[in-house]
Amino acid sequence: MRRADALDIEGFADTFTPDGEVVHADGGRTRGRDEMVAAMRARLPRYQGVATQHWFGHLLVERLADGALGVSYYTLVAQSEGGGLSFQPAYTVDDVLVREPGGALLTRSRIIRRNTPGQR
Amino acid sequence: MRRADALDIEGFADTFTPDGEVVHADGGRTRGRDEMVAAMRARLPRYQGVATQHWFGHLLVERLADGALGVSYYTLVAQSEGGGLSFQPAYTVDDVLVREPGGALLTRSRIIRRNTPGQR
Amino acid sequence: MRRADALDIEGFADTFTPDGEVVHADGGRTRGRDEMVAAMRARLPRYQGVATQHWFGHLLVERLADGALGVSYYTLVAQSEGGGLSFQPAYTVDDVLVREPGGALLTRSRIIRRNTPGQR
Repeated sequence: MRRADALDIEGFADTFTPDGEVVHADGGRTRGRDEMVAAMRARLPRYQGVATQHWFGHLLVERLADGALGVSYYTLVAQSEGGGLSFQPAYTVDDVLVREPGGALLTRSRIIRRNTPGQR
Repeated sequence: MRRADALDIEGFADTFTPDGEVVHADGGRTRGRDEMVAAMRARLPRYQGVATQHWFGHLLVERLADGALGVSYYTLVAQSEGGGLSFQPAYTVDDVLVREPGGALLTRSRIIRRNTPGQR
Repeated sequence: MRRADALDIEGFADTFTPDGEVVHADGGRTRGRDEMVAAMRARLPRYQGVATQHWFGHLLVERLADGALGVSYYTLVAQSEGGGLSFQPAYTVDDVLVREPGGALLTRSRIIRRNTPGQR
Protein backbone atom coordinates (compact mmCIF):
# COMPACT_ATOMS: atom_id res chain seq x y z
CA MET A 1 0.00 0.00 0.00
CA ARG A 2 2.94 2.35 0.53
CA ARG A 3 3.65 1.96 -3.18
CA ALA A 4 0.03 2.72 -4.03
CA ASP A 5 0.03 5.76 -1.72
CA ALA A 6 3.21 6.99 -3.47
CA LEU A 7 1.36 6.56 -6.82
CA ASP A 8 3.96 3.94 -7.81
CA ILE A 9 1.25 2.14 -9.77
CA GLU A 10 3.49 -0.36 -11.53
CA GLY A 11 5.32 -1.17 -8.29
CA PHE A 12 1.97 -1.71 -6.58
CA ALA A 13 0.77 -4.02 -9.40
CA ASP A 14 3.97 -6.03 -8.93
CA THR A 15 2.83 -7.00 -5.42
CA PHE A 16 0.11 -9.11 -7.11
CA THR A 17 0.50 -12.35 -9.03
CA PRO A 18 0.38 -11.82 -12.83
CA ASP A 19 -3.27 -12.94 -12.86
CA GLY A 20 -4.06 -11.25 -9.54
CA GLU A 21 -7.63 -10.10 -9.09
CA VAL A 22 -9.15 -7.21 -7.12
CA VAL A 23 -12.85 -6.91 -6.33
CA HIS A 24 -13.61 -3.33 -5.32
CA ALA A 25 -16.23 -2.20 -2.84
CA ASP A 26 -18.44 -0.92 -5.67
CA GLY A 27 -18.41 -4.35 -7.31
CA GLY A 28 -15.87 -3.35 -9.98
CA ARG A 29 -13.26 -5.99 -10.75
CA THR A 30 -9.77 -5.89 -12.25
CA ARG A 31 -7.79 -8.96 -13.26
CA GLY A 32 -4.11 -9.06 -14.15
CA ARG A 33 -1.43 -6.43 -13.71
CA ASP A 34 -2.09 -4.62 -17.01
CA GLU A 35 -5.76 -4.11 -16.22
CA MET A 36 -4.85 -3.04 -12.68
CA VAL A 37 -2.34 -0.45 -13.88
CA ALA A 38 -4.82 0.94 -16.43
CA ALA A 39 -7.58 1.21 -13.82
CA MET A 40 -5.31 2.97 -11.34
CA ARG A 41 -4.04 5.33 -14.03
CA ALA A 42 -7.63 6.30 -14.79
CA ARG A 43 -8.19 7.14 -11.12
CA LEU A 44 -4.99 9.26 -10.84
CA PRO A 45 -6.68 12.66 -11.31
CA ARG A 46 -8.59 12.29 -8.06
CA TYR A 47 -5.29 11.90 -6.16
CA GLN A 48 -3.72 15.09 -7.51
CA GLY A 49 -2.78 17.33 -4.62
CA VAL A 50 -3.92 14.81 -2.02
CA ALA A 51 -1.54 12.81 0.17
CA THR A 52 -3.03 9.41 0.95
CA GLN A 53 -2.22 6.88 3.68
CA HIS A 54 -3.89 3.48 3.77
CA TRP A 55 -3.86 2.11 7.31
CA PHE A 56 -4.26 -1.60 8.13
CA GLY A 57 -5.35 -3.09 11.43
CA HIS A 58 -6.53 -6.24 13.23
CA LEU A 59 -5.01 -8.68 10.76
CA LEU A 60 -6.31 -12.25 10.89
CA VAL A 61 -4.01 -14.73 9.13
CA GLU A 62 -4.96 -18.34 8.39
CA ARG A 63 -3.42 -21.10 6.29
CA LEU A 64 -5.81 -22.16 3.52
CA ALA A 65 -6.23 -25.74 2.24
CA ASP A 66 -4.01 -25.14 -0.81
CA GLY A 67 -1.18 -23.65 1.28
CA ALA A 68 -2.00 -20.03 0.44
CA LEU A 69 -2.51 -17.49 3.24
CA GLY A 70 -5.87 -15.90 3.89
CA VAL A 71 -5.37 -12.45 5.42
CA SER A 72 -8.30 -10.35 6.58
CA TYR A 73 -7.92 -6.82 7.92
CA TYR A 74 -9.51 -3.46 8.62
CA THR A 75 -8.45 -0.51 6.53
CA LEU A 76 -8.82 3.23 6.92
CA VAL A 77 -7.83 5.70 4.21
CA ALA A 78 -6.51 9.02 5.54
CA GLN A 79 -6.14 11.91 3.11
CA SER A 80 -4.25 15.14 3.75
CA GLU A 81 -5.27 18.10 1.64
CA GLY A 82 -4.18 21.61 2.55
CA GLY A 83 -3.86 21.72 6.33
CA GLY A 84 -6.54 19.15 7.16
CA LEU A 85 -6.94 15.40 7.36
CA SER A 86 -10.04 13.51 6.32
CA PHE A 87 -11.02 9.86 6.24
CA GLN A 88 -12.89 7.79 3.69
CA PRO A 89 -15.45 5.33 5.04
CA ALA A 90 -13.96 2.21 6.65
CA TYR A 91 -13.37 -1.00 4.71
CA THR A 92 -12.60 -4.62 5.50
CA VAL A 93 -10.30 -6.43 3.06
CA ASP A 94 -9.78 -10.16 2.44
CA ASP A 95 -6.55 -11.09 0.64
CA VAL A 96 -5.20 -14.43 -0.52
CA LEU A 97 -1.39 -14.41 -0.60
CA VAL A 98 0.85 -16.99 -2.26
CA ARG A 99 4.59 -17.54 -1.89
CA GLU A 100 6.43 -17.32 -5.23
CA PRO A 101 9.34 -19.71 -5.97
CA GLY A 102 11.72 -16.76 -5.43
CA GLY A 103 10.33 -16.28 -1.91
CA ALA A 104 8.22 -13.17 -2.44
CA LEU A 105 4.70 -13.13 -1.02
CA LEU A 106 2.27 -11.91 -3.71
CA THR A 107 -1.45 -11.15 -3.60
CA ARG A 108 -3.51 -13.57 -5.70
CA SER A 109 -6.85 -12.01 -4.86
CA ARG A 110 -8.21 -9.07 -2.89
CA ILE A 111 -11.82 -8.45 -1.97
CA ILE A 112 -12.61 -5.00 -0.57
CA ARG A 113 -15.86 -4.52 1.31
CA ARG A 114 -17.32 -1.30 2.65
CA ASN A 115 -17.80 -1.77 6.37
CA THR A 116 -21.47 -2.34 7.12
CA PRO A 117 -23.34 -2.27 10.42
CA GLY A 118 -23.31 -5.55 12.34
CA GLN A 119 -26.55 -7.52 12.18
CA ARG A 120 -28.42 -8.97 15.18
CA MET B 1 -12.70 -6.78 18.87
CA ARG B 2 -13.62 -7.93 15.38
CA ARG B 3 -16.30 -10.09 17.00
CA ALA B 4 -17.57 -7.13 19.03
CA ASP B 5 -17.60 -4.91 15.92
CA ALA B 6 -19.62 -7.60 14.10
CA LEU B 7 -22.06 -7.55 17.07
CA ASP B 8 -21.17 -11.21 17.77
CA ILE B 9 -21.74 -10.55 21.46
CA GLU B 10 -21.54 -14.15 22.62
CA GLY B 11 -18.40 -14.75 20.54
CA PHE B 12 -16.84 -11.64 22.04
CA ALA B 13 -17.71 -12.73 25.59
CA ASP B 14 -16.00 -16.06 24.85
CA THR B 15 -12.67 -14.24 24.48
CA PHE B 16 -12.83 -13.62 28.24
CA THR B 17 -12.36 -16.09 31.07
CA PRO B 18 -15.70 -17.21 32.59
CA ASP B 19 -15.17 -14.73 35.46
CA GLY B 20 -13.58 -12.08 33.24
CA GLU B 21 -14.07 -8.50 34.35
CA VAL B 22 -14.31 -5.23 32.39
CA VAL B 23 -14.00 -1.80 33.97
CA HIS B 24 -15.40 0.79 31.58
CA ALA B 25 -14.21 4.36 31.17
CA ASP B 26 -17.31 5.65 32.98
CA GLY B 27 -16.52 3.46 35.99
CA GLY B 28 -19.16 0.86 35.12
CA ARG B 29 -18.08 -2.71 35.71
CA THR B 30 -19.20 -6.08 34.34
CA ARG B 31 -18.07 -9.45 35.68
CA GLY B 32 -18.57 -12.81 34.02
CA ARG B 33 -19.74 -13.66 30.53
CA ASP B 34 -23.48 -13.57 31.32
CA GLU B 35 -23.30 -10.07 32.73
CA MET B 36 -21.11 -8.99 29.81
CA VAL B 37 -23.56 -10.34 27.22
CA ALA B 38 -26.50 -8.66 28.98
CA ALA B 39 -24.71 -5.31 29.15
CA MET B 40 -23.73 -5.45 25.48
CA ARG B 41 -27.24 -6.45 24.46
CA ALA B 42 -28.57 -3.39 26.30
CA ARG B 43 -26.21 -1.16 24.30
CA LEU B 44 -27.15 -2.71 20.92
CA PRO B 45 -29.67 -0.03 19.88
CA ARG B 46 -26.92 2.59 19.69
CA TYR B 47 -25.07 0.46 17.12
CA GLN B 48 -28.03 0.11 14.74
CA GLY B 49 -27.04 1.42 11.34
CA VAL B 50 -23.49 2.20 12.42
CA ALA B 51 -20.44 0.20 11.29
CA THR B 52 -17.80 0.20 14.02
CA GLN B 53 -14.08 -0.56 13.89
CA HIS B 54 -12.00 -0.67 17.07
CA TRP B 55 -8.35 0.06 16.25
CA PHE B 56 -5.47 -0.97 18.54
CA GLY B 57 -1.98 0.50 18.56
CA HIS B 58 1.33 0.74 20.46
CA LEU B 59 0.89 -2.52 22.37
CA LEU B 60 3.12 -3.00 25.41
CA VAL B 61 3.32 -6.64 26.54
CA GLU B 62 4.88 -7.75 29.82
CA ARG B 63 4.97 -11.01 31.74
CA LEU B 64 3.34 -10.59 35.17
CA ALA B 65 4.49 -12.31 38.37
CA ASP B 66 1.79 -15.00 38.16
CA GLY B 67 2.63 -15.86 34.53
CA ALA B 68 -0.27 -13.90 33.03
CA LEU B 69 0.39 -11.31 30.31
CA GLY B 70 -0.19 -7.62 30.93
CA VAL B 71 -1.05 -5.91 27.63
CA SER B 72 -1.52 -2.15 27.40
CA TYR B 73 -2.59 -0.39 24.19
CA TYR B 74 -4.13 2.66 22.58
CA THR B 75 -7.54 2.33 21.04
CA LEU B 76 -9.53 4.44 18.60
CA VAL B 77 -13.14 3.69 17.70
CA ALA B 78 -14.07 4.59 14.10
CA GLN B 79 -17.73 4.66 13.16
CA SER B 80 -19.13 4.79 9.63
CA GLU B 81 -22.64 6.13 9.29
CA GLY B 82 -24.02 7.14 5.91
CA GLY B 83 -21.05 8.35 3.83
CA GLY B 84 -18.93 9.71 6.67
CA LEU B 85 -16.52 8.46 9.28
CA SER B 86 -16.30 9.75 12.83
CA PHE B 87 -14.18 8.90 15.85
CA GLN B 88 -15.01 8.53 19.51
CA PRO B 89 -12.52 10.04 21.99
CA ALA B 90 -9.29 8.06 22.39
CA TYR B 91 -8.85 5.42 25.09
CA THR B 92 -6.01 3.48 26.64
CA VAL B 93 -6.76 -0.11 27.67
CA ASP B 94 -4.97 -2.43 30.11
CA ASP B 95 -5.70 -6.14 29.71
CA VAL B 96 -4.55 -9.17 31.67
CA LEU B 97 -4.48 -12.28 29.47
CA VAL B 98 -4.16 -15.87 30.65
CA ARG B 99 -3.41 -19.01 28.67
CA GLU B 100 -6.12 -21.67 29.05
CA PRO B 101 -5.17 -25.39 29.30
CA GLY B 102 -6.44 -25.81 25.71
CA GLY B 103 -4.01 -23.14 24.51
CA ALA B 104 -6.39 -20.24 23.95
CA LEU B 105 -5.41 -16.83 25.29
CA LEU B 106 -8.34 -15.33 27.19
CA THR B 107 -8.85 -11.93 28.81
CA ARG B 108 -9.11 -12.11 32.61
CA SER B 109 -9.52 -8.39 33.11
CA ARG B 110 -9.80 -5.24 31.03
CA ILE B 111 -9.57 -1.67 32.29
CA ILE B 112 -10.59 1.03 29.80
CA ARG B 113 -9.50 4.60 30.49
CA ARG B 114 -10.46 7.71 28.56
CA ASN B 115 -7.23 9.31 27.37
CA THR B 116 -6.40 12.31 29.51
CA PRO B 117 -3.91 15.12 28.99
CA GLY B 118 -0.39 14.37 30.19
CA GLN B 119 0.60 16.05 33.45
CA ARG B 120 3.78 18.06 34.04
CA MET C 1 5.94 7.66 21.68
CA ARG C 2 3.84 6.58 24.65
CA ARG C 3 6.33 8.41 26.85
CA ALA C 4 6.08 11.53 24.67
CA ASP C 5 2.27 11.35 24.73
CA ALA C 6 2.41 11.11 28.55
CA LEU C 7 4.64 14.24 28.52
CA ASP C 8 7.45 12.17 30.05
CA ILE C 9 9.94 14.30 28.15
CA GLU C 10 13.08 12.99 29.83
CA GLY C 11 11.91 9.39 29.40
CA PHE C 12 11.24 10.06 25.74
CA ALA C 13 14.69 11.63 25.25
CA ASP C 14 16.19 8.49 26.81
CA THR C 15 14.91 6.43 23.86
CA PHE C 16 17.49 8.28 21.72
CA THR C 17 21.26 7.86 21.72
CA PRO C 18 23.03 10.65 23.65
CA ASP C 19 23.82 12.41 20.33
CA GLY C 20 20.50 11.45 18.73
CA GLU C 21 19.15 13.86 16.14
CA VAL C 22 15.61 14.76 15.10
CA VAL C 23 14.77 16.63 11.90
CA HIS C 24 11.25 18.02 12.16
CA ALA C 25 8.78 18.47 9.33
CA ASP C 26 9.31 22.25 9.42
CA GLY C 27 13.06 21.76 8.93
CA GLY C 28 13.88 22.43 12.58
CA ARG C 29 16.57 20.21 14.02
CA THR C 30 17.50 19.11 17.55
CA ARG C 31 20.65 17.20 18.44
CA GLY C 32 21.40 15.47 21.74
CA ARG C 33 19.11 14.73 24.65
CA ASP C 34 19.53 18.10 26.40
CA GLU C 35 18.51 20.06 23.31
CA MET C 36 15.62 17.64 22.74
CA VAL C 37 14.31 18.06 26.30
CA ALA C 38 14.57 21.86 26.08
CA ALA C 39 12.72 21.95 22.72
CA MET C 40 9.94 19.70 24.03
CA ARG C 41 9.61 21.74 27.21
CA ALA C 42 9.14 24.86 25.08
CA ARG C 43 6.29 23.16 23.22
CA LEU C 44 4.54 21.97 26.42
CA PRO C 45 1.98 24.79 26.60
CA ARG C 46 0.31 23.66 23.40
CA TYR C 47 -0.32 20.23 24.96
CA GLN C 48 -2.07 21.60 28.05
CA GLY C 49 -5.54 20.11 28.28
CA VAL C 50 -5.03 17.97 25.16
CA ALA C 51 -4.62 14.19 25.25
CA THR C 52 -2.37 13.07 22.41
CA GLN C 53 -1.88 9.66 20.80
CA HIS C 54 0.78 9.12 18.14
CA TRP C 55 -0.17 6.17 15.94
CA PHE C 56 2.35 4.23 13.83
CA GLY C 57 1.60 2.05 10.82
CA HIS C 58 3.06 0.19 7.83
CA LEU C 59 6.54 -0.17 9.30
CA LEU C 60 9.32 -1.05 6.84
CA VAL C 61 12.44 -2.39 8.58
CA GLU C 62 15.76 -2.92 6.80
CA ARG C 63 19.28 -3.72 7.95
CA LEU C 64 21.67 -0.91 6.98
CA ALA C 65 25.30 -1.39 5.90
CA ASP C 66 26.68 -0.47 9.35
CA GLY C 67 24.36 -2.90 11.15
CA ALA C 68 21.87 -0.26 12.28
CA LEU C 69 18.17 -0.67 11.51
CA GLY C 70 16.36 1.66 9.13
CA VAL C 71 12.70 1.88 10.12
CA SER C 72 10.21 3.84 8.04
CA TYR C 73 6.56 4.28 9.05
CA TYR C 74 3.39 6.28 8.71
CA THR C 75 2.24 8.32 11.67
CA LEU C 76 -1.05 9.95 12.62
CA VAL C 77 -1.44 12.21 15.64
CA ALA C 78 -4.86 12.01 17.30
CA GLN C 79 -5.78 14.66 19.85
CA SER C 80 -8.70 14.52 22.28
CA GLU C 81 -9.91 17.82 23.61
CA GLY C 82 -13.25 18.14 25.35
CA GLY C 83 -15.51 15.47 23.86
CA GLY C 84 -14.03 15.43 20.36
CA LEU C 85 -11.11 13.90 18.52
CA SER C 86 -9.09 15.64 15.82
CA PHE C 87 -6.11 14.67 13.72
CA GLN C 88 -3.02 16.56 12.67
CA PRO C 89 -1.88 16.16 9.05
CA ALA C 90 -0.24 12.82 8.28
CA TYR C 91 3.51 12.30 8.46
CA THR C 92 6.02 9.71 7.32
CA VAL C 93 8.99 9.10 9.63
CA ASP C 94 12.41 7.55 8.92
CA ASP C 95 14.33 6.34 11.96
CA VAL C 96 17.77 4.80 12.33
CA LEU C 97 17.94 2.54 15.39
CA VAL C 98 21.07 1.13 17.00
CA ARG C 99 21.43 -1.62 19.56
CA GLU C 100 23.29 -0.46 22.68
CA PRO C 101 25.79 -2.79 24.44
CA GLY C 102 23.18 -3.29 27.20
CA GLY C 103 20.67 -4.55 24.61
CA ALA C 104 18.37 -1.54 24.36
CA LEU C 105 17.38 -0.31 20.91
CA LEU C 106 17.87 3.47 20.73
CA THR C 107 17.06 6.01 18.02
CA ARG C 108 20.16 7.57 16.47
CA SER C 109 18.27 9.73 14.02
CA ARG C 110 14.69 10.57 13.12
CA ILE C 111 13.51 12.43 10.05
CA ILE C 112 9.86 13.54 10.08
CA ARG C 113 8.26 14.49 6.77
CA ARG C 114 4.80 15.92 6.21
CA ASN C 115 3.02 13.55 3.87
CA THR C 116 2.92 15.04 0.39
CA PRO C 117 0.88 14.03 -2.65
CA GLY C 118 2.44 11.30 -4.77
CA GLN C 119 4.01 12.50 -8.00
CA ARG C 120 3.35 11.02 -11.46
